[in-house]
Amino acid sequence: MSANHSSPEILKERLCYQGRKFNFEVSHIRLPNGMEGEWECIRHPGGALAVPLTPEGKLVLVDQYRFPLKQRLLEFPAGTVESSEKAAETIKRELEEETGYRAHQWQDLGKFPLAPGYSDEYIYSFLATDLEQLDTPPDQDEDEDIEIALYTPQELEKLIHSGEANVDAKSIASYYLARPYF
Amino acid sequence: MSANHSSPEILKERLCYQGRKFNFEVSHIRLPNGMEGEWECIRHPGGALAVPLTPEGKLVLVDQYRFPLKQRLLEFPAGTVESSEKAAETIKRELEEETGYRAHQWQDLGKFPLAPGYSDEYIYSFLATDLEQLDTPPDQDEDEDIEIALYTPQELEKLIHSGEANVDAKSIASYYLARPYF
Repeated sequence: MSANHSSPEILKERLCYQGRKFNFEVSHIRLPNGMEGEWECIRHPGGALAVPLTPEGKLVLVDQYRFPLKQRLLEFPAGTVESSEKAAETIKRELEEETGYRAHQWQDLGKFPLAPGYSDEYIYSFLATDLEQLDTPPDQDEDEDIEIALYTPQELEKLIHSGEANVDAKSIASYYLARPYF
Repeated sequence: MSANHSSPEILKERLCYQGRKFNFEVSHIRLPNGMEGEWECIRHPGGALAVPLTPEGKLVLVDQYRFPLKQRLLEFPAGTVESSEKAAETIKRELEEETGYRAHQWQDLGKFPLAPGYSDEYIYSFLATDLEQLDTPPDQDEDEDIEIALYTPQELEKLIHSGEANVDAKSIASYYLARPYF
């Protein structure tokens, strides 16, 4: 690493807000060029996401209300990685809770940073296949209001490229990470 | 909209932190099921992103240090939409500042929500072609330390699918929104 790429120095970190799923921190930083200032970010334990594909070739998405945007979005099932869990465990649980499907085959699709301007969250993506619809699905989280929606890959691509998709970044990115497998 | 899909009621909103580029708000909310609680989110004016393609068929990416992740990432050029700007204006300015290229052709690729669990940010993506390398590029922002990196589409896809790409969600999603055009 050259001198030009030395890292900023963190002079002070302050926990600004402690939430249920993540914290918000403000750091006082000195950049390599000597400039000082406050940088703020969300500290997040990571998210795990499934691209579930049924034996009939349909993708399973969730349609849910998102409070920050005050509207419903179409997303792949996902959840916050709990401190006691690995991402692969989180997503098995979340897939069943959110969709009522159990997957018997899992393929690790890799990870990517979600919003690196203000969050340290990584999304861990998995392809979920050999799906079984559970007779008695586990209860959804009490604060969730989720409906499932089935799309063929062609239908989803058309929606994504329509420009008014309301499909979020992690779902678009994960779809294309999974695409070579189906 | 059915009774099952009525929206949460916002009982109180509190500005928790006012940053240079976004605010952090905490809202006390009552869900349709009667449950109450605090939901927190980043209020962001939106981001504009370019997928720049040179006449030689190379994609122009930026390699920059990201403080929340304490490492350098590979991303498409992007910036925060200023209050006086439209996204199409933001990205013309940012492309020149971050890469030293000016684009003479722009194609609107649509928008998508970046991190709807805790942010209202939309990314507005554009394909930038007919690129001209400026003799005297505008200065970078004082707090930025950016290098440009050129990749063919095949090289970038290989990197994205390697699982250790350090390419972020908005860049992966935008690459595939642009893919049908080249």
